[in-house]
Amino acid sequence: MDMQHQAMGYDRTATMFSPDGHLLQVEYAEKGVKLGSSSIGMKCSDGVFILADKRVTDKLIAKKSANKIFEIDSHIIVSSAGILSDAKVLIEKGQVTAQQHRITYDSPIEPELIVKEIASIKQQFSQYGGARPFGVFIMIAGINGKKPELYASSITGNYLEYHANAIGEDDEKIKEMLRENYKKDLTIKEGVKVALDIFKKVQGDKFGIDRFELCYIKSDKVILEKLEGEEIKELK
Amino acid sequence: MDMQHQAMGYDRTATMFSPDGHLLQVEYAEKGVKLGSSSIGMKCSDGVFILADKRVTDKLIAKKSANKIFEIDSHIIVSSAGILSDAKVLIEKGQVTAQQHRITYDSPIEPELIVKEIASIKQQFSQYGGARPFGVFIMIAGINGKKPELYASSITGNYLEYHANAIGEDDEKIKEMLRENYKKDLTIKEGVKVALDIFKKVQGDKFGIDRFELCYIKSDKVILEKLEGEEIKELK
Amino acid sequence: MDMQHQAMGYDRTATMFSPDGHLLQVEYAEKGVKLGSSSIGMKCSDGVFILADKRVTDKLIAKKSANKIFEIDSHIIVSSAGILSDAKVLIEKGQVTAQQHRITYDSPIEPELIVKEIASIKQQFSQYGGARPFGVFIMIAGINGKKPELYASSITGNYLEYHANAIGEDDEKIKEMLRENYKKDLTIKEGVKVALDIFKKVQGDKFGIDRFELCYIKSDKVILEKLEGEEIKELK
Amino acid sequence: MDMQHQAMGYDRTATMFSPDGHLLQVEYAEKGVKLGSSSIGMKCSDGVFILADKRVTDKLIAKKSANKIFEIDSHIIVSSAGILSDAKVLIEKGQVTAQQHRITYDSPIEPELIVKEIASIKQQFSQYGGARPFGVFIMIAGINGKKPELYASSITGNYLEYHANAIGEDDEKIKEMLRENYKKDLTIKEGVKVALDIFKKVQGDKFGIDRFELCYIKSDKVILEKLEGEEIKELK
Amino acid sequence: MDMQHQAMGYDRTATMFSPDGHLLQVEYAEKGVKLGSSSIGMKCSDGVFILADKRVTDKLIAKKSANKIFEIDSHIIVSSAGILSDAKVLIEKGQVTAQQHRITYDSPIEPELIVKEIASIKQQFSQYGGARPFGVFIMIAGINGKKPELYASSITGNYLEYHANAIGEDDEKIKEMLRENYKKDLTIKEGVKVALDIFKKVQGDKFGIDRFELCYIKSDKVILEKLEGEEIKELK
Amino acid sequence: MDMQHQAMGYDRTATMFSPDGHLLQVEYAEKGVKLGSSSIGMKCSDGVFILADKRVTDKLIAKKSANKIFEIDSHIIVSSAGILSDAKVLIEKGQVTAQQHRITYDSPIEPELIVKEIASIKQQFSQYGGARPFGVFIMIAGINGKKPELYASSITGNYLEYHANAIGEDDEKIKEMLRENYKKDLTIKEGVKVALDIFKKVQGDKFGIDRFELCYIKSDKVILEKLEGEEIKELK
Amino acid sequence: MDMQHQAMGYDRTATMFSPDGHLLQVEYAEKGVKLGSSSIGMKCSDGVFILADKRVTDKLIAKKSANKIFEIDSHIIVSSAGILSDAKVLIEKGQVTAQQHRITYDSPIEPELIVKEIASIKQQFSQYGGARPFGVFIMIAGINGKKPELYASSITGNYLEYHANAIGEDDEKIKEMLRENYKKDLTIKEGVKVALDIFKKVQGDKFGIDRFELCYIKSDKVILEKLEGEEIKELK
Repeated sequence: MDMQHQAMGYDRTATMFSPDGHLLQVEYAEKGVKLGSSSIGMKCSDGVFILADKRVTDKLIAKKSANKIFEIDSHIIVSSAGILSDAKVLIEKGQVTAQQHRITYDSPIEPELIVKEIASIKQQFSQYGGARPFGVFIMIAGINGKKPELYASSITGNYLEYHANAIGEDDEKIKEMLRENYKKDLTIKEGVKVALDIFKKVQGDKFGIDRFELCYIKSDKVILEKLEGEEIKELK
Repeated sequence: MDMQHQAMGYDRTATMFSPDGHLLQVEYAEKGVKLGSSSIGMKCSDGVFILADKRVTDKLIAKKSANKIFEIDSHIIVSSAGILSDAKVLIEKGQVTAQQHRITYDSPIEPELIVKEIASIKQQFSQYGGARPFGVFIMIAGINGKKPELYASSITGNYLEYHANAIGEDDEKIKEMLRENYKKDLTIKEGVKVALDIFKKVQGDKFGIDRFELCYIKSDKVILEKLEGEEIKELK
Repeated sequence: MDMQHQAMGYDRTATMFSPDGHLLQVEYAEKGVKLGSSSIGMKCSDGVFILADKRVTDKLIAKKSANKIFEIDSHIIVSSAGILSDAKVLIEKGQVTAQQHRITYDSPIEPELIVKEIASIKQQFSQYGGARPFGVFIMIAGINGKKPELYASSITGNYLEYHANAIGEDDEKIKEMLRENYKKDLTIKEGVKVALDIFKKVQGDKFGIDRFELCYIKSDKVILEKLEGEEIKELK
Repeated sequence: MDMQHQAMGYDRTATMFSPDGHLLQVEYAEKGVKLGSSSIGMKCSDGVFILADKRVTDKLIAKKSANKIFEIDSHIIVSSAGILSDAKVLIEKGQVTAQQHRITYDSPIEPELIVKEIASIKQQFSQYGGARPFGVFIMIAGINGKKPELYASSITGNYLEYHANAIGEDDEKIKEMLRENYKKDLTIKEGVKVALDIFKKVQGDKFGIDRFELCYIKSDKVILEKLEGEEIKELK
Repeated sequence: MDMQHQAMGYDRTATMFSPDGHLLQVEYAEKGVKLGSSSIGMKCSDGVFILADKRVTDKLIAKKSANKIFEIDSHIIVSSAGILSDAKVLIEKGQVTAQQHRITYDSPIEPELIVKEIASIKQQFSQYGGARPFGVFIMIAGINGKKPELYASSITGNYLEYHANAIGEDDEKIKEMLRENYKKDLTIKEGVKVALDIFKKVQGDKFGIDRFELCYIKSDKVILEKLEGEEIKELK
Repeated sequence: MDMQHQAMGYDRTATMFSPDGHLLQVEYAEKGVKLGSSSIGMKCSDGVFILADKRVTDKLIAKKSANKIFEIDSHIIVSSAGILSDAKVLIEKGQVTAQQHRITYDSPIEPELIVKEIASIKQQFSQYGGARPFGVFIMIAGINGKKPELYASSITGNYLEYHANAIGEDDEKIKEMLRENYKKDLTIKEGVKVALDIFKKVQGDKFGIDRFELCYIKSDKVILEKLEGEEIKELK
Repeated sequence: MDMQHQAMGYDRTATMFSPDGHLLQVEYAEKGVKLGSSSIGMKCSDGVFILADKRVTDKLIAKKSANKIFEIDSHIIVSSAGILSDAKVLIEKGQVTAQQHRITYDSPIEPELIVKEIASIKQQFSQYGGARPFGVFIMIAGINGKKPELYASSITGNYLEYHANAIGEDDEKIKEMLRENYKKDLTIKEGVKVALDIFKKVQGDKFGIDRFELCYIKSDKVILEKLEGEEIKELK
């Protein structure tokens, strides 16, 4: 980041381009996202999963309450990195959209329609003044028909489909390891093992299975399943 | 806090991210919260309670008037730390929601729906310009069915469920002691003793039972009870 | 006040928290309040009164016009310290509310409902941008059933119930003396004497009975009575 | 005025309190008012009058057009000091209100209701952003039943009732002389003489009867009469 | 103008008073008005006229197009000094008002109602933020019944009636000469000669009859007549 | 341009007058206009034409697409200098107005009504905040009945009628030559020759007939004709 | 870029002209566009195509998801350079417009109507405050009847028709090569080869057929066809 551009004030609102064409407020918000706890998503041969680091180890906090993976619909799950209360606003919009789709068409919504709507809201908050951008990355996993799908959207509302992905703290390091270890024919059980191994390496001494929460959807059942802590190891 | 980021002005509005991705206005508001008088909430084997330091010892002030614990509904209570008039706005919204729920569904509202609504309002005031964020932490205790529940929400509207929690002055010190002394099978009577002991240690010479106000709800009766000063010691 | 926080501009709008969590504009407005002429309110065994210093001694001004105590309803009176025209806006809201209550319920409104409404308006003006906070403290005295009540609200809309209270110039000094001399079993006649004695001590040479205006409501009659200057001494 | 508070910018908007609790923009607007030409109002034993300095001596200007005293209704007159076009906005509001009152109640409006309405508009423009305060003092004289009344309102919308008063240039000096020379039993004829004598002393060589305009309302007739220049001396 | 007040920024918006009570933006706009070409208006024994300097001598510009005198109605004419496109907005409002008056009351509108409406719009643009003040002086001449009338309004919307007046470049110098040479019993023919003589003296070598445009309305005919350049000399 | 006024910030918004009464943002926008490619308009004995420099010589760009002369209606054409996308907004408004006129009155609209509407929009954008002024000069040529007319409007929305005119790059130099060479009895054919000769002199080596586009309307046919590049030389 | 104009702040909002008449924020946004991946469009003898560099080589990203060419309708395609989420907002508007046209007129929309609508939205965002300009260039290719058409629009909403064009990184270098190598009688197959050769030269070692995506529409079939990576080489 150019110190001079800071001194000149190009980074004070999300509606201002810096002289070299950057949106600095958006880039700052992305820095905040990297301070959030991380999660890994993966498309597997038999479904899709998100494994999230809840970080919480405070015994005063009710475990369930610290969950980082939310249900959009019974076939779509979502994790976030960044300002959690921002994420919840977007997730709720997604939940309402999914319900309306079920009521209107009597069928489950395609996961991409959810990510599209969330991305569109994010875009608006990165272009219009009067509010700050949503300070979150959102990762969405779901089943479209029988096909697993995985998406992630950035601050400006750009989104991509992934085979495997990570958001939050150390995301670049984790993605590097995913590139080495991910294979398309991994089962959910195998994929989760790969993801846990990556977390072990990245977190070192701080790693502990108690910090983790797993949510997966099998392509044939299309019902989301949740496991926490030691249960994750028992996954069949 | 980086002095340079202050000089650069990243901390002047709640709608601006600092270069490292923080919302400094939100963090400042949190500082204000820590200046407020503190309260302890606890889930117990037979219900839930909040014990609040009213701080007031001015004989000119009517005791009842300085109360820090408010009723949302007969099964939900709330305390706050920070700007009290801000808290009252949120509490009133909660009261209306609880009443509407009773009228619409003829049943008591789940405590989490109250914290969710309050948190959602807080989120909006930390994202949109034109107003400052609500300068309060809110702690909500209640009975859901026969189950005690305890929540607390931050400035940005993030909220968690707790077994035991403290907000306001010296909250970190109090929570540290709660981690040591809290057990899930404490009765309300035992829990209040634990909480009072913590206040005694934290406040030292300034401690006095007259400053305190207790509100508890037993899981079986689901009716809130209030005690003040010496009465608290008489609790059975 | 930290000079550095002024230089940094944290005190320029009411919608900005200073780095240590204060709302400086609100604190400045409170300074203005302390420049206003003072009044003392007191709950007594036989009712409630407000004794106000009108300060005015200009013979060009019609005495009645300089009055500082206003009637909300025949059982509720109010005095203010700070910007008088701001106070009048709030007092008028209170008057309308009181009238509507009489029409709707055919009974006098509880004094606390008036202070609540005024406080709620004040809160909004201390949180939203586009206007400055109301620069006044408001003291409200009234009879609820047969019980005297006394309230005061600050700039942010926080309010407390008092046994006795003072707002405006030298309020802290006056309250200190009230703490020493106030007793719950004082009659209005005795209480007014206590209040006048306090004013005498605080104002020294500037004291003069002509500057004062008294308004009291007896618990049994529930009709407000007004006295000015020498009349006050004749009170039975 | 503290130069430092100017340098700090506390005086740039009417919606900002200075660190010592002042509204500096309001105080600046008051300075502007003192640049305006002055007028004297007086309650007399047989009615009320306003004597205004029109200042204009330019023979190109139609005399009638430079008038400084306006009619709100046949029993209420008004003069202003400050920005004349601002004054006219307020006076027109008053005229409409007076007409509506006549139509609705078939009786002349009380002068205080007019000053109250004008003051309320001024208050709003000194609290809300997006516009500047009205840069005028308004003096209102009228007959209420058979009783003469005289009011003046400041920039913030505070208003008082007067026995005699002056607004505009040298107002303090004029008021000082009024305090010495005003008596309640003066007739209009005598009062006008007192006022003219004061203007003579204050204006010295610049004084000339041609600059003056007189408007009076007798308590028994309740019809306003206008005199200009030499005519004023002929008043019986 | 005080350089220091500029450095302090009191002159940046029309909604800010300077420490000595001036509206500097309004005063700046008045400077711009003095850069505009000038016109002289005069009430005469047999009607009223405006003589305007069109300044244009560019042969590429169609003469008619450079006209500076506009018709509000057949009995009311108007000239302006300052930003011509601003003037046209106000003139159009006046034209619509005049037409509506004819349709509603089936009679010509009084000239003062036109100047009043234009002045009221100008006042608003000098008090409210979000737009700049209208950068024009407007001079209005017309016949009311059989009586000639002449008005001019400033930036803030203050207006006066004149016997004779000048706006635009060198207005003070022209008005000084008008004071010397204007007499109420001049006929239009004589008055125009006086005005032309003044322009000759003020403009010196730059004077040329081709630059001028004359518009007059005789009190008995009440129909406006237009003359340009040499035609003006032929006026009978 | 006074450097000091820049440093003081008088040139930052279109709604601020500089101390000498200028609208600097408007003057800056005019500078931008002079960077645009130029066009010449001319009223002739047999009609009216606009000859525009398209500047484009890039073989990748479709020639038709670089056209600078647009049709408002079959009897009105327009060219612009400055921000082309701004111009298109105004031209579209003109086109709609012309169509509505045809539908409503079943006759071609007068060209001046089009320039009037465009000028009125421009005026608003130079007075109100929240948007920048339209950064274009607009030249409009058309036939009114059988009479050719030519108009041009500036940034503030001021407009004049011309016999001949130029806007854009080197406009002053071109107008100087027009003053020397324009005669009212030129035919379109002769006028176009004059205009091309001027462009040849002003552009020197950069001149090339390929860069030019001609649009003319004969007074008797009232149908616009278009010619490009070498075709222009063939005009009869 | 003049450093001084930056220091003076002329480049802070899109609604401010610099002293030399530039919109600096718009120019900054254009810099951002040049950071985006590039695409080449070309009109050919048998249709039109866009060849886009997807840049993505990350194996974690689903290929289809990284596509840079979007379908507006079956006969219109679009690529963008700059902020992709901004582009999607505009593309969606185009898609809706195209669908509405089909429903209303039962025929395919002309490509120019799509570019016109997108350009008009862009213009508004470069003139009005409260939001930043759309940070994208948009290139649109389509068939109008049987005729291929190619357009591109800039930040301000200006657009041109092209024979061949490039947007994004190295656009100037690519356009220079297009000028040398483009011929109007190239077939799509030949044109794609020319485009690939240009990319090879410009990207050097970084070139790889896997990064590319081709979309073409034959004039006779009017159905868009998509090819990726090695498939592009197989195009017949």
